[in-house]
Amino acid sequence: MCGVFGIFGHPEAANLAYLGLHALQHRGQESAGIVTSDGERLFGHRAMARVQDGFTPADLASLRGDRAIGHVRYSTAGGSHLKNAQPIGVDYARGSIAVAHNGNLTNFEALRERLEERGSIFQTASDTESIVHLIAISGKESIPDRIAEALAQVEGAYSLLFLDERELVAVRDPMGIRPLCLGVLERDGVTAHVVASEPTAFDLIGARLLRDVAPGEMLVIDASGVRSRFPFPKAPRKMCLFEYVYFARPDSVLEGANVYEVRKALGRRLAEEQPIRAGDDLVVIPVPDSGLPAAIGFAGRAGAPFEMGLIRSHYVGRTFIEPQQSIRHFGVRLKLNPNRAAIAGKRVVVVDDSIVRGTTSRKIVKMIRDAGAREVHVRISSPPVRWPCFYGIDTPTRSELIASSHAASEIATYLTADSLGYLSLEGLVESVRSVEARDRAGEAPTADAYCHACFSGSYPIPFTPPTGARHLRMVNG
Amino acid sequence: MCGVFGIFGHPEAANLAYLGLHALQHRGQESAGIVTSDGERLFGHRAMARVQDGFTPADLASLRGDRAIGHVRYSTAGGSHLKNAQPIGVDYARGSIAVAHNGNLTNFEALRERLEERGSIFQTASDTESIVHLIAISGKESIPDRIAEALAQVEGAYSLLFLDERELVAVRDPMGIRPLCLGVLERDGVTAHVVASEPTAFDLIGARLLRDVAPGEMLVIDASGVRSRFPFPKAPRKMCLFEYVYFARPDSVLEGANVYEVRKALGRRLAEEQPIRAGDDLVVIPVPDSGLPAAIGFAGRAGAPFEMGLIRSHYVGRTFIEPQQSIRHFGVRLKLNPNRAAIAGKRVVVVDDSIVRGTTSRKIVKMIRDAGAREVHVRISSPPVRWPCFYGIDTPTRSELIASSHAASEIATYLTADSLGYLSLEGLVESVRSVEARDRAGEAPTADAYCHACFSGSYPIPFTPPTGARHLRMVNG
Amino acid sequence: MCGVFGIFGHPEAANLAYLGLHALQHRGQESAGIVTSDGERLFGHRAMARVQDGFTPADLASLRGDRAIGHVRYSTAGGSHLKNAQPIGVDYARGSIAVAHNGNLTNFEALRERLEERGSIFQTASDTESIVHLIAISGKESIPDRIAEALAQVEGAYSLLFLDERELVAVRDPMGIRPLCLGVLERDGVTAHVVASEPTAFDLIGARLLRDVAPGEMLVIDASGVRSRFPFPKAPRKMCLFEYVYFARPDSVLEGANVYEVRKALGRRLAEEQPIRAGDDLVVIPVPDSGLPAAIGFAGRAGAPFEMGLIRSHYVGRTFIEPQQSIRHFGVRLKLNPNRAAIAGKRVVVVDDSIVRGTTSRKIVKMIRDAGAREVHVRISSPPVRWPCFYGIDTPTRSELIASSHAASEIATYLTADSLGYLSLEGLVESVRSVEARDRAGEAPTADAYCHACFSGSYPIPFTPPTGARHLRMVNG
Amino acid sequence: MCGVFGIFGHPEAANLAYLGLHALQHRGQESAGIVTSDGERLFGHRAMARVQDGFTPADLASLRGDRAIGHVRYSTAGGSHLKNAQPIGVDYARGSIAVAHNGNLTNFEALRERLEERGSIFQTASDTESIVHLIAISGKESIPDRIAEALAQVEGAYSLLFLDERELVAVRDPMGIRPLCLGVLERDGVTAHVVASEPTAFDLIGARLLRDVAPGEMLVIDASGVRSRFPFPKAPRKMCLFEYVYFARPDSVLEGANVYEVRKALGRRLAEEQPIRAGDDLVVIPVPDSGLPAAIGFAGRAGAPFEMGLIRSHYVGRTFIEPQQSIRHFGVRLKLNPNRAAIAGKRVVVVDDSIVRGTTSRKIVKMIRDAGAREVHVRISSPPVRWPCFYGIDTPTRSELIASSHAASEIATYLTADSLGYLSLEGLVESVRSVEARDRAGEAPTADAYCHACFSGSYPIPFTPPTGARHLRMVNG
Repeated sequence: MCGVFGIFGHPEAANLAYLGLHALQHRGQESAGIVTSDGERLFGHRAMARVQDGFTPADLASLRGDRAIGHVRYSTAGGSHLKNAQPIGVDYARGSIAVAHNGNLTNFEALRERLEERGSIFQTASDTESIVHLIAISGKESIPDRIAEALAQVEGAYSLLFLDERELVAVRDPMGIRPLCLGVLERDGVTAHVVASEPTAFDLIGARLLRDVAPGEMLVIDASGVRSRFPFPKAPRKMCLFEYVYFARPDSVLEGANVYEVRKALGRRLAEEQPIRAGDDLVVIPVPDSGLPAAIGFAGRAGAPFEMGLIRSHYVGRTFIEPQQSIRHFGVRLKLNPNRAAIAGKRVVVVDDSIVRGTTSRKIVKMIRDAGAREVHVRISSPPVRWPCFYGIDTPTRSELIASSHAASEIATYLTADSLGYLSLEGLVESVRSVEARDRAGEAPTADAYCHACFSGSYPIPFTPPTGARHLRMVNG
Repeated sequence: MCGVFGIFGHPEAANLAYLGLHALQHRGQESAGIVTSDGERLFGHRAMARVQDGFTPADLASLRGDRAIGHVRYSTAGGSHLKNAQPIGVDYARGSIAVAHNGNLTNFEALRERLEERGSIFQTASDTESIVHLIAISGKESIPDRIAEALAQVEGAYSLLFLDERELVAVRDPMGIRPLCLGVLERDGVTAHVVASEPTAFDLIGARLLRDVAPGEMLVIDASGVRSRFPFPKAPRKMCLFEYVYFARPDSVLEGANVYEVRKALGRRLAEEQPIRAGDDLVVIPVPDSGLPAAIGFAGRAGAPFEMGLIRSHYVGRTFIEPQQSIRHFGVRLKLNPNRAAIAGKRVVVVDDSIVRGTTSRKIVKMIRDAGAREVHVRISSPPVRWPCFYGIDTPTRSELIASSHAASEIATYLTADSLGYLSLEGLVESVRSVEARDRAGEAPTADAYCHACFSGSYPIPFTPPTGARHLRMVNG
Repeated sequence: MCGVFGIFGHPEAANLAYLGLHALQHRGQESAGIVTSDGERLFGHRAMARVQDGFTPADLASLRGDRAIGHVRYSTAGGSHLKNAQPIGVDYARGSIAVAHNGNLTNFEALRERLEERGSIFQTASDTESIVHLIAISGKESIPDRIAEALAQVEGAYSLLFLDERELVAVRDPMGIRPLCLGVLERDGVTAHVVASEPTAFDLIGARLLRDVAPGEMLVIDASGVRSRFPFPKAPRKMCLFEYVYFARPDSVLEGANVYEVRKALGRRLAEEQPIRAGDDLVVIPVPDSGLPAAIGFAGRAGAPFEMGLIRSHYVGRTFIEPQQSIRHFGVRLKLNPNRAAIAGKRVVVVDDSIVRGTTSRKIVKMIRDAGAREVHVRISSPPVRWPCFYGIDTPTRSELIASSHAASEIATYLTADSLGYLSLEGLVESVRSVEARDRAGEAPTADAYCHACFSGSYPIPFTPPTGARHLRMVNG
Repeated sequence: MCGVFGIFGHPEAANLAYLGLHALQHRGQESAGIVTSDGERLFGHRAMARVQDGFTPADLASLRGDRAIGHVRYSTAGGSHLKNAQPIGVDYARGSIAVAHNGNLTNFEALRERLEERGSIFQTASDTESIVHLIAISGKESIPDRIAEALAQVEGAYSLLFLDERELVAVRDPMGIRPLCLGVLERDGVTAHVVASEPTAFDLIGARLLRDVAPGEMLVIDASGVRSRFPFPKAPRKMCLFEYVYFARPDSVLEGANVYEVRKALGRRLAEEQPIRAGDDLVVIPVPDSGLPAAIGFAGRAGAPFEMGLIRSHYVGRTFIEPQQSIRHFGVRLKLNPNRAAIAGKRVVVVDDSIVRGTTSRKIVKMIRDAGAREVHVRISSPPVRWPCFYGIDTPTRSELIASSHAASEIATYLTADSLGYLSLEGLVESVRSVEARDRAGEAPTADAYCHACFSGSYPIPFTPPTGARHLRMVNG
């Protein structure tokens, strides 16, 4: 997963991009990059580090100009190299251009093959580089037209920011799979437009959310303001449900819906779909922090007390020394410690957002039981994750997804849980729809306005699974 | 504040000390150090860094032996130098000895003056160095006797760990102001004793809490096991209340009482002492993470919904670039962001553990109001902090403590809060007593078994405020 | 200036490339890079650092395979970014290819404009990237043919190494302006071919110099051995004289001539052309280390004692703190200190290889005089540098070259020298020719077999001075 | 070996100390430290690094005041820890004091035992810490008197600098074994006194050498100027001969004698004592840089040409990757490469300053022969090193000194040299005496005014070889 941020028209563009990326770090901590422009040239800096570690004051000072785009990237298998950090910035016939991308192109290999046959060279393993090549060879005159022509050849999920010497262009893919929103920063007589993957990035810098960028919309931002275009054929909205379930920050608002409210609603619905017998010895605890809102919702609906039964450490480091001697639950214990007093002798409902491989959940269940819980009931505020995501979330392969080959009862046995209950896909969709409708004070989107491929296998964009044949042949360290 | 950890009799002593310190990092992140012994020599490594950054695998490998003591230290004004990191290790007539200290000596300057007159030299600014000098000049034969003779000359709060070639000695001051507990690690046929500031350090390494070290108790740990002595005149227990209110981790157990349960009890009592008019528009939110348990307790007792109205960022870095242009609530916003959906249009009760200077609380109140709260009521789960701590907590000087010169109503005005309510000292003491009694399934300690000097000005150990004349003349970088 | 190194057929290819680059560091210390291949993929690592600082053992271990090319680069103004470090490695239609380049393309801007018009994008500011584009769009089948077709469109000086999955290709430009040599490493039954800018790189790894790569020659090295081709129209040899005068290491052999012997010969000829009155008070001293061989030659011919009148510090660091108070000769003194006993009261002849801006020479003259020299006579073992180099040496612009606008007598006055004598261009050429003839035991090359553009302004390759219009628009940090 | 530098009365004291240490780095690169004073407090910074790497501008800015002492230390076996870096700075009854030491105390263990019995604690493994303890327990009033009383109990070699809030005190041991000199920096109306191990440190900062500190002399430097005292009983001068032979920089002047001139004289005498048959095929080459002056002297006297037959690399790094495959002469080749043209087919005389273990010399001889030399004759400008130094030079133990157990002929065989000739001790002493006499234009010191213990085993200060019993029990990382 990645996060993008852009700003146009502010004298401290680089500093504000830095802060915006800081607020988007839950979307990626492996690399961070910013490209700015002073209207004549572009200036870039990228680092294989969290934004606060990879940018010195001198780095920021070198990023001149009043406009910027930035990018944070999540660690993915194979390809943790500076060359793959974004934004990608290049020179071409029309000047310079930089691009930051959240999402994934499903026809990447075919595009790359076609471009290579034409004589193009690739210096990164990123699918994003293809987009730049397409822009460079476009026959169109204006940058927005060149971008539109390039993206017309592209399939997949993308929230894209482009910066050249003249304008900042933001584009969301026709189905709107990844989020992107528009805001404005007004202070001291300066009005600057901002775009970001989530509005939480606006909060930190004091900007105000105007609206989501619509699926298929292109915004062209320059000194004269913001112009909107819809250069692609209309397509059904397919907003990613996993953004609501896990990825977005709880204080974000996506498509009008507050993520925290969505997650509480998921918890309430989950309590209805997967109830637990009431009793004085019942306690509902979250896996912090991701399961917290759903646990609050679950506890409220179930009428059971909500407690912090697992305490999260804030000091987890990178390079940890593991003792040779085995310590029970060691890996998960570095991050979470059971709070005995809250769970000993209790029937414990532990609420989490999802189960991927199941290994961590199993450790958590055992740890809770070791701390004295009488029963451990696992409740998951989303359906079983059975299919990989090809639209930008780094899920493991199918064979690693425990729910792809095991029924809930088998998973419960594996987790050593007394019971396991998932939210239904219908429950998930209905909950999101109802909060969207309420928060926007409008009509609910239709039930098919969401991508739930990871739960259902129903992929909204057809694709050929990548063979890797055209992928990352040159290994750059 | 500091944290200490010790282990005797385990082949991976250095690794386990490293992990124990990791679990104590909420007590200090400025420096970390470990000294080990193989029975013949001592081996030390200290770093001005968090333990996970300051110790490489090679560093740990160089720390040979089956016993270790470790120390983490909180950043204090003036004196952030490696020389002041602990444990302090020295050679003297009887061999080598190392010491790790949590607490503060109140007769430090007089001690230092007396020692300097005798010809002693001081290489650190730490009061702990005095203890080592006193041990070195003791006329006693055994190490425990030398330590006892040295500590008989010392006043103040201390939980101390000593390591020499033969034994590990743990001492808690006669009033038991700072916590210290004893545990045991049994696995694979190895039995190792462990001591730590809080039992949460035992959880991570799979050790089991045996009991608190008693006020005035000295434990001598060697290959033959643990021997207990009480070398000092008996004194009344004066356990620090602020450990319960703020400092300890919620999953710790101090004096038998679970800290999380204490904090929930404080929240319940606070709801009784400082009630808010009920209503559908009422919501209780914590300042995360410190105010979380009290907010749960408050909400339960007040019958109002508990919500995460402030979202905490997990990615706050050290060296942050602040934009030149003022951003509202910038400093606090890096760490906390209001969750609009949970608070807009609501009467918000925000629960925190304490108010020190008041500047952060003021920013939080304003931020909550900016996010749309109709009213903002501040509730604090401890009494006003009016006096500095001379026993090891780095509180600011009296003039910086807002409650030392302002009434609650004036502070409420400063905070721009609609109301402000503190817990009474009596309420605090009663709540801690009741949980101590319940959790230990025994009698409650008396009401005067606590140090509440920071709230009441009633200092259990008489002292002359330090003049600084004997303090830190040589500034070592 | 840059240095290149290549090896084919050795199990420790990356380690040996590392060592080869270490021996070439006098040709560039700003960046270092290595690309290897295991026959199926390419593996690269580059760093903005000296090779011993930029490559960890783990970096080297990640560079798999039995063949490698490497590159070191000198610091040049504008463009000190990792993206510009070499080798450049890319994927294209035929697989992967990497290239390392010593030299400079004179038609770089025209090439880049043509390629950009075609739709190519540029990710570096390096002229070398153009070569890769030309290879990628070539219509030829084999890699050597594609390279030949690409280089047929290129003008300028180049010693180039290419590596793909199958072969290592080494090419020297038709005029042979930059050096390149071929060697063989035979030990323990392994035979590996090596190529390098200078044979001193062979010495360190125990390889043996076979011969210089001829001007215009292409060597294709693969498992079957070395094949030679001459794909370009024949051109006159124009070996760079400045390599002999300054750039190459004295223990190198270029075109058969030992550089140390050449420099001694220059010193002898200089003593004949620019004699000094003999006398007991005469002493000849070098500017160490570059002027050392010429000073030995000068002293021998002049019959005057050779002394180390300037002592060079071996500990000059990067980031030096300069005192605010002015210190006489501070800048040069960090590196050189006068040895008073050797020069006080003497008539001093100080021998250096060249004068560029004159500022350092002026400081040296003053420093020698301050140390008590009666007279200071400057002798330079090459003609005045009057013209910039467009073939790979980073000389300053014409206006900064003191000899471009001042006669020798004026320069002597600026230097505050009692006399200044340059070697004549004829003297330089004759000396190099005679050593070439002697060391090769063959005929001397003709007098026009050298590039002396920096001395004479007679540029062997016509060119349009670059306008910078197509150069480095995107500034990548 | 170590180097010390001090300055009193200059507004840029820390910066100038930094530069002074930079010029003394040939005396120690393992650690560097500076302590300054503003007249009220002392400020220190020390680092396990070369001075240019271990001191940032911020570090230097934190070192306030107009007076400073500094120290550089050579890497010694066992004890490479920050705690052992100097200057050592402590607080004691009279305020603060810091000390920097070049030399070694021979009664260190007895002193330490006596002090420990008294109750002193030791935080470093350095003998220097004992001196501070002795000062702290002195009954004298003034600092100079306390220092004199302390040093009266000390035996060994020392050039010491002390700094407290009031004065800078410099002391050279009664026999003057290690060098120490006094200078003055006058510019812009500021007059500051400087002291340093060698006057080369004065050159860099523009200070002027006044004179050597005399054996047994104490200089007290404060705002009123420099006062001289001789607090110790008179002892014969025993200046270290190895300083002339190897340790000092050639541009230094020790005891009035220019080191470069001494070394040339050693080379001339060596040519007389250990002649080589003349002939056209004879060439004299130095092992650079240490053997350079002696080789010039040898070549001049022998009437044979002086050539740079070995080229030294300036880029030798710390952490070097060695290939698994053996490379002939690899270790020495990183630093030195034979210059074939100068030695092939020749009878080569290679001149070096000394032979310690013999391993490097053996590699050099073989490397020269491999490069085509017909004969290799080793000439050493000092006598065989047969005994360890107990006065501050880190020679290996006796058993590692090849000359302690082998005759010159055996060593020649080991080196694979055609001949080996050492300078006689008489020749060494006579040469140094004659240059001392000439350069000071005075009488020569007597032949017994030198310490030649490493050559003769005649130790001027009696001592008990240390047992290590009192040494470095606490291992501080």
